Amino acid sequence: MSTSQHEQSKSTNGKTIPVVVDNNHTPSATLTTKPFPASQKVYVTGSHPSVRVPMREITLTPTKGPNGSPPSPNPSVTVYDPSGPYTDPNVTINVRKGLQPLRQAWITQRNDVEQLEEVTSTYGRQRAMDASLDSIRFALSRKPLRAKSGMNVTQMHYARQGIVTPEMEFIAIRENQAREEQAETLRANDHQARGVVQHPGQAWGAAIPSHITPEFVRDEVALGRAIIPSNINHPEVEPMIIGRNFLVKINANIGNSAVTSSIEEEVEKLIWSIRWGSDTVMDLSTGKNIHETREWIIRNSPVPIGTVPIYQALEKVGGKPEELTWEIYRDTLIEQAEQGVDYFTIHAGVRLAYVPLTATRMTGIVSRGGSIHAKWCLAHHQENFTYTHFEEICEIMKTYDVSFSLGDGLRPGSIADANDAAQFSELETLGELTHTAWQHDVQVMIEGPGHVPMHMIKENMDKQLEACKEAPFYTLGPLTTDIAPGYDHITSGIGAAMIGWYGCAMLCYVTPKEHLGLPNKEDVKDGVIAYKISAHAADLAKGHPGAQARDNALSKARFEFRWEDQFNLSLDPETARDYHDATLPDQAAKGAHFCSMCGPSFCSMKITQDVRDYADQLKVEEQEAIQIGLKEKSEEFRKAGGEIYL
Amino acid sequence: MSTSQHEQSKSTNGKTIPVVVDNNHTPSATLTTKPFPASQKVYVTGSHPSVRVPMREITLTPTKGPNGSPPSPNPSVTVYDPSGPYTDPNVTINVRKGLQPLRQAWITQRNDVEQLEEVTSTYGRQRAMDASLDSIRFALSRKPLRAKSGMNVTQMHYARQGIVTPEMEFIAIRENQAREEQAETLRANDHQARGVVQHPGQAWGAAIPSHITPEFVRDEVALGRAIIPSNINHPEVEPMIIGRNFLVKINANIGNSAVTSSIEEEVEKLIWSIRWGSDTVMDLSTGKNIHETREWIIRNSPVPIGTVPIYQALEKVGGKPEELTWEIYRDTLIEQAEQGVDYFTIHAGVRLAYVPLTATRMTGIVSRGGSIHAKWCLAHHQENFTYTHFEEICEIMKTYDVSFSLGDGLRPGSIADANDAAQFSELETLGELTHTAWQHDVQVMIEGPGHVPMHMIKENMDKQLEACKEAPFYTLGPLTTDIAPGYDHITSGIGAAMIGWYGCAMLCYVTPKEHLGLPNKEDVKDGVIAYKISAHAADLAKGHPGAQARDNALSKARFEFRWEDQFNLSLDPETARDYHDATLPDQAAKGAHFCSMCGPSFCSMKITQDVRDYADQLKVEEQEAIQIGLKEKSEEFRKAGGEIYL
Repeated sequence: MSTSQHEQSKSTNGKTIPVVVDNNHTPSATLTTKPFPASQKVYVTGSHPSVRVPMREITLTPTKGPNGSPPSPNPSVTVYDPSGPYTDPNVTINVRKGLQPLRQAWITQRNDVEQLEEVTSTYGRQRAMDASLDSIRFALSRKPLRAKSGMNVTQMHYARQGIVTPEMEFIAIRENQAREEQAETLRANDHQARGVVQHPGQAWGAAIPSHITPEFVRDEVALGRAIIPSNINHPEVEPMIIGRNFLVKINANIGNSAVTSSIEEEVEKLIWSIRWGSDTVMDLSTGKNIHETREWIIRNSPVPIGTVPIYQALEKVGGKPEELTWEIYRDTLIEQAEQGVDYFTIHAGVRLAYVPLTATRMTGIVSRGGSIHAKWCLAHHQENFTYTHFEEICEIMKTYDVSFSLGDGLRPGSIADANDAAQFSELETLGELTHTAWQHDVQVMIEGPGHVPMHMIKENMDKQLEACKEAPFYTLGPLTTDIAPGYDHITSGIGAAMIGWYGCAMLCYVTPKEHLGLPNKEDVKDGVIAYKISAHAADLAKGHPGAQARDNALSKARFEFRWEDQFNLSLDPETARDYHDATLPDQAAKGAHFCSMCGPSFCSMKITQDVRDYADQLKVEEQEAIQIGLKEKSEEFRKAGGEIYL
Repeated sequence: MSTSQHEQSKSTNGKTIPVVVDNNHTPSATLTTKPFPASQKVYVTGSHPSVRVPMREITLTPTKGPNGSPPSPNPSVTVYDPSGPYTDPNVTINVRKGLQPLRQAWITQRNDVEQLEEVTSTYGRQRAMDASLDSIRFALSRKPLRAKSGMNVTQMHYARQGIVTPEMEFIAIRENQAREEQAETLRANDHQARGVVQHPGQAWGAAIPSHITPEFVRDEVALGRAIIPSNINHPEVEPMIIGRNFLVKINANIGNSAVTSSIEEEVEKLIWSIRWGSDTVMDLSTGKNIHETREWIIRNSPVPIGTVPIYQALEKVGGKPEELTWEIYRDTLIEQAEQGVDYFTIHAGVRLAYVPLTATRMTGIVSRGGSIHAKWCLAHHQENFTYTHFEEICEIMKTYDVSFSLGDGLRPGSIADANDAAQFSELETLGELTHTAWQHDVQVMIEGPGHVPMHMIKENMDKQLEACKEAPFYTLGPLTTDIAPGYDHITSGIGAAMIGWYGCAMLCYVTPKEHLGLPNKEDVKDGVIAYKISAHAADLAKGHPGAQARDNALSKARFEFRWEDQFNLSLDPETARDYHDATLPDQAAKGAHFCSMCGPSFCSMKITQDVRDYADQLKVEEQEAIQIGLKEKSEEFRKAGGEIYL
């Protein structure tokens, strides 16, 4: 490990880019674009050069040979990488221009979309004409797309016609990289050769293949078991999949509120959250300039963006739920679909009849979207308009390929309310709506809780799979206790890992600020890292082929005192290094065959080498014993007359 | 909530006491003794005034009445409190004098101990006579105790004779407080009255009673299903129990190393770790002045102290495992037993024959104690001396009532090595040794892993219960993935919560510095809080009666925007408050019926009140409908002629 590499990795703040949205004021945010230490962005190309799948390759140092013998190299480890072009030093980042529209040609070549002269939404047109917004408006020259009349542009629609899209091929390559290629590498590794066994996990009814083909991706999407959130107006997205036969994904929530945050800060949080591994990002803005903020986020996002359209619809009626109308909501859906939102949380399962079921709860309705709809239902004494207009919503969804994330507006907000009648009644309705959406070939995932003690988590997964016919589940935690505000990334990380193991496809992160305040940049990172841990622990427990490769590489590095490799393979190399340096700051300690825990005079890892030598010697003795035994046997045999059958 | 109370709770560093061990140098450490906000130390007295069980009572503010009606009070919440006299403002703390020996009379009144004129251990005598150690020696006037010849002073021995000791009564009161008294309180609570159900957990073969009697404590100890670590030379301990039919406990490790730390800092860490909720503390010192450091720790500890005697024995032979002898080890056991260590980790299951089983592992032997014994076995080609001398060790244990914590010297150090032949072979031997110890009425718990993926955790618990005949299990995590050094309190918190649910009795914490460096004060706190979360999540999942009371009280406070109560009920009030203040620093916001997440114009919690009003109205209508229905029915009945049988 060269010194320069070490110095380079000392701080990820080395290469930062200011985010300038409004030229009239000083930028308040910056982007970190530095690649991770010892890492390089690599691309695997598919059947066409435009299918160019990004990955992060971590280079390892060789293992020292015993007693001066030559070192043996360690193969690099390639990891799934949602961080986008921001960690590719060959790409020039300019947030004012946004990312390259890598899917543009795939979308237009399907010949099922038309380009609009202007946006369809009335509100969108008003915003576009408002000169006072010029200074904060993202300058997009491209016009929005929508499906030609009578056409359906969803990935599910293509899948059901047997078409393998470039998106599907992209995903197959992307998901595979973390599988058999690394398993292959590990098999070549000397520890594997010594007999370390890959333990198969329990798949809880899932069927995870060892090799993902584009056809497998297609079939899972066609069956509704997985979704590819990929709005035709978000061509910048690097395709990814959410389904329980694939790697468990995580989502980070960002967004401003009436109390805090600027556009710059939201763009900064987006890029920060994918840097640490977030697979999708939801923009939950409820404050000022929601429309413009979202545009900046989408144009700069290589991951799918989700929203909860009712939040913006509510802002449009001055925050009064009872004044919401289907027309305003519908216009909001189209406005956001034409900007490129990839999935919408829609709380169509909050039916009027279920609302009284929440009255006896400890914490009533805690979903913001759920309570908006509940309030509207009560004020008008009418059924939820997203339920009554559900088929019209499906029409919009298939015109842009927006996926449903059917919201759990009645999720429990406390341990006391877990798995109650309100929650499970809504889930049944979400199952019914899934069926309707699938009749339109619209992609669906289902949102889940919330606050659930450990022993009641599996019931959630089982009921969801049954009610929603295996549509992917997407849960918020769940939090396994209510007593630790300030640490809910941990209370929920426990539940998230467990439900991921049981089959949940995507885990919505919870930050340490949950229930207390809006997350800042450090909170976003803490939430993402905690959820990467949960998702990976779930992948291991599900027995994902190859998921253990990174664990094994890191453990081998640990065992061999390759400190730099241990840092570089970790989810957060910088923190791992800082913690090591807090006790042993010298660079020399990075090569030391001991650590601060035991000190230089004694080391358990060192002793294992003696054990190995001893075992080898035992084996020699055993071999000799067998040889001797055979010799004796053969002499006996000869003495007995040499007959085979006595 | 008065302003003064608020200011008081702003910082726990308000009341600090310097730790002065060596008068020759400036103290490097301080104790935080401030009570938690809105909390007071209360004592529940048993059948004799000397049985005085400490608890922390958290006072809550009343719930505002709707529309100007009078507020309704919220009952205070009493929580289990291992923090000792340090959080009692009525106790004067002086670390140079140590804590009051509250068990002294209980111990001597049993008439089975004798007071020694001087310590038995040769090494202990040498240290006592070494004038150069005067400045760092704790000045204990009391002489050590040991059992009279032929006597057995273990709690298990008393239990098996049907005796209920004061320790057992103390524990029954202590464990109960978190049970039916709070469940009682909650039943009186209006939310409960509205029909919130306590969900019973799955006990995985455990039998957790709703009320703990002193006799139940005795019986569990007699059966070996629980232990009370309580050395007769540690009369300062506030008795506690470790067993799966009781609350799940946690342990924090402290201790210096050759690289770092002073006596002052270790005392500071002890008191800091119990402040945040650690139930026992292990002193794993391997550096300078191990003997003196331990004395300071024990004299100031209200919780049981555990050690790994082989660490000190190794220091005595200059760090060379092959130079260890049974005599040195034996002298170390007696030295530590006479200081008052409550449990010893002894790696007697690391048998010579198992050592070669670790040769093909990814990470060999990672237990320091395990590798010391392995090295010794190989060097001498002899069986582990703690195995061959096990009965003699039992004799020592029962002379002072030191509990065994049978070490898992061959635990897996990586996901790749989980549940392998080496690990499970050792576990079988630990079962055999448990049987032997129980023949001596010596208390036993069993240490467990380590690094285990989620789907392989339950097998550990099941095999341990079977092999060790339900002796309490005490695990280190387990870590559910290897890829997150810097966050191993989280990777292991997941596994700890799960194995706690499955029946593990005590969880040994892991700090964020695990694998990287020695924990500082903040790391100790982070580790303890993460493990309090795991232990409590496990208590909820096991269905411990009353465990949910604190969750419910906090959720009710959250729902009613009683922010101060929400902070005060959390595991870490200060952090919860700081996080809230980061977004809304004004004191006025603590009374606000909104939070930073949604802002003032909209709040989901507020909407629930509308839902409740609506549901109440519905109920009225329903009642009316029933009344009308009955009237119609009765008219029909009359019209039909009034005959009952038509």
